[in-house]
Amino acid sequence: MNGKLLRTQGVTAPAGFRAAGIAAGIKKSGKLDLALVFNEGPEQAAAGVFTTNKVKAAPVLWSQQVLTSGRVRAVVLNSGGANACTGAPGFQDTHRTAEELAAALSNWGTDTGGGEIAVCSTGLIGDRLPMDKLVPGLTEIVHELAGGISGGTDAAHAIMTTDTVAKEAAFHHDGNWVVGGMAKGAGMLAPSLATMLSVVTTDAVATAEQLDAALRAATRMTFDRLDVDGATSTNDTVLLLSSGASGVAPTQAELDAAVLAVCDDLAYQLMADAEGVTKRVTVAVTGAKTEADALVGARTVARDSLVKTALFGSDPNWGRVMAAIGIAPIELDPDRISVSFNGSFVCIDGVGAPGAREIDLTGEDIELIVDLGIGSASASIRTTDLSHAYVEENSAYSS
Amino acid sequence: MNGKLLRTQGVTAPAGFRAAGIAAGIKKSGKLDLALVFNEGPEQAAAGVFTTNKVKAAPVLWSQQVLTSGRVRAVVLNSGGANACTGAPGFQDTHRTAEELAAALSNWGTDTGGGEIAVCSTGLIGDRLPMDKLVPGLTEIVHELAGGISGGTDAAHAIMTTDTVAKEAAFHHDGNWVVGGMAKGAGMLAPSLATMLSVVTTDAVATAEQLDAALRAATRMTFDRLDVDGATSTNDTVLLLSSGASGVAPTQAELDAAVLAVCDDLAYQLMADAEGVTKRVTVAVTGAKTEADALVGARTVARDSLVKTALFGSDPNWGRVMAAIGIAPIELDPDRISVSFNGSFVCIDGVGAPGAREIDLTGEDIELIVDLGIGSASASIRTTDLSHAYVEENSAYSS
Repeated sequence: MNGKLLRTQGVTAPAGFRAAGIAAGIKKSGKLDLALVFNEGPEQAAAGVFTTNKVKAAPVLWSQQVLTSGRVRAVVLNSGGANACTGAPGFQDTHRTAEELAAALSNWGTDTGGGEIAVCSTGLIGDRLPMDKLVPGLTEIVHELAGGISGGTDAAHAIMTTDTVAKEAAFHHDGNWVVGGMAKGAGMLAPSLATMLSVVTTDAVATAEQLDAALRAATRMTFDRLDVDGATSTNDTVLLLSSGASGVAPTQAELDAAVLAVCDDLAYQLMADAEGVTKRVTVAVTGAKTEADALVGARTVARDSLVKTALFGSDPNWGRVMAAIGIAPIELDPDRISVSFNGSFVCIDGVGAPGAREIDLTGEDIELIVDLGIGSASASIRTTDLSHAYVEENSAYSS
Repeated sequence: MNGKLLRTQGVTAPAGFRAAGIAAGIKKSGKLDLALVFNEGPEQAAAGVFTTNKVKAAPVLWSQQVLTSGRVRAVVLNSGGANACTGAPGFQDTHRTAEELAAALSNWGTDTGGGEIAVCSTGLIGDRLPMDKLVPGLTEIVHELAGGISGGTDAAHAIMTTDTVAKEAAFHHDGNWVVGGMAKGAGMLAPSLATMLSVVTTDAVATAEQLDAALRAATRMTFDRLDVDGATSTNDTVLLLSSGASGVAPTQAELDAAVLAVCDDLAYQLMADAEGVTKRVTVAVTGAKTEADALVGARTVARDSLVKTALFGSDPNWGRVMAAIGIAPIELDPDRISVSFNGSFVCIDGVGAPGAREIDLTGEDIELIVDLGIGSASASIRTTDLSHAYVEENSAYSS
């Protein structure tokens, strides 16, 4: 694929998008807490992927409805509150947010209906949003909309919760079209609490169906294979919007590749900034009978608390890896499994290798490969260690 | 059920059993590390339940073979090494252990074959056992066999790894027969590392089939519903041996109830002494369509790292409970779910209850009930919080 990836640009890197991030007073800290991504067009095609949790936040229920039209004019996102488990009044808050934003955009000169507005929220589950702060913020943020790179960066900051850095990426295709994106969160599509939100934009000319295909293919290989703690949020949302402003219509394969590149980089950034992370870990299962088996195996190892605490301790405790893969509901033969850390074999054909306990895992990056030795399929999961900082951060979140 | 439960007695509480625990030098610390439970008869019926992990330790593979006969003369257990992932040489070590013990028992005057000896091991996965220490210990421990309560208590101490206290329980049925047991470990049937081993004995007259039925029914409701970290060990084993020495043949229902009482108490002791525990937690799901749904739901919540870290922080963060139950693969309606902590409702019909954030969870015992409100089935799981001590203990285990 011809082009280049930049981390200094996000949703406003493609032509036809403006964005903003402001402090509306939703967060008591006074930090940025309201973001807006606005599609100037000429087109407004869109696709979305949402949490599979059966307990869905109000903004997820709303945005799923909006996306059925395949058309989104703007996305408004707030941190400081998830608006989940808030019942019918919470859904009315989301509905009102969309309508008030549409009115503000219309006053600003862009005729917009509430049904064209996607809404995302992130923060503590269970509390109503402070609509007295949020609604005035909607008028204010429309006036802050900016087409330059700074607008996108402000928006990326405004959706942060426990994130320590903003996450942006943009892929500039040599064919003169761009895919840009921002994300927040710290886990798989999707961690509980550390809701994973992402908005990806492009100025390529593409139909809603093409966007949907590109987004589903990309999330399956990126956000879906990031698993910090096995939890799945009530609020996770990934949206892809196209303005068509480049006038270039790439092939599906070109679009797929560019969206994948941006999502993959954002997923890496999410892993690197996950809650309490001290190790960036890739767990790969190779030699499986099927890719599905490989993926389930990698996910099972990546979620194992005993493997994750060992990695926190820089301990090449491969026995825990064997115990973890052994409970995965996949086809395997214990006597054909080999395990390696950062390229050094610690277990061969189910038995420890010489020097296995002396492998140095003190670095920040760990590649753990479990070879099942019974096939040719493989898959990998990005995860983290289980550290004191994870326990600390998550035991004090709502207090 | 008529009788009484004591925690001061274990496997030698029933007539016809002797036990011992010695320091054979398997553990470098010099602590007790070898245990023996010997059935003097007149009968030697037995049943066993083993780990479902596909990666099985050598002693599990051996003991599964032994148990197919429905007859066990003695159980030898070592801590200080799991003898898992040790290949064919490891299996030969287990085989040799059984044969050497049978020879020692025969020399002592009890004609015994290796095929009548069950073997259990617990400790670090991946290393060979020090047979130069273990084999001399087998002769020594036969001479230490004692019929009194102290022999059982020594054995219970000799199987400890990260346990901080020995776990014993005995149920004295008013009909003049007894069920006694010991256990070690810290998790579900079964946690990785903290292998769960238990030997239960009775002087009731019962066939291997009756014992098997009683043991499977009991483990399903007790050890199987204890889940500290979702991990399952390569070594987990629960054995039930009967001597028939009381001469009393209880009904199946009486036997079931007594075995259940002992296993339930041992499971409680395992939870209370789990690795890094600061909270003893019961997660119950009620109002489910089926018991299977209730059990899967309770297990999903009990395994959720974000729920467990919140409980460590004494934080009634019910939103995490809702997010966790929402990913359970069971039938539910988010708008009908209610959640309570220690009897106080924090969420009713999917929405937060007044005062939910002020519930006091600073005590050591927490009962978390999730009512699905769509049926009448229920199930519960015993678990613990996820604490700094859990991370500390498990990040330094093999070093």
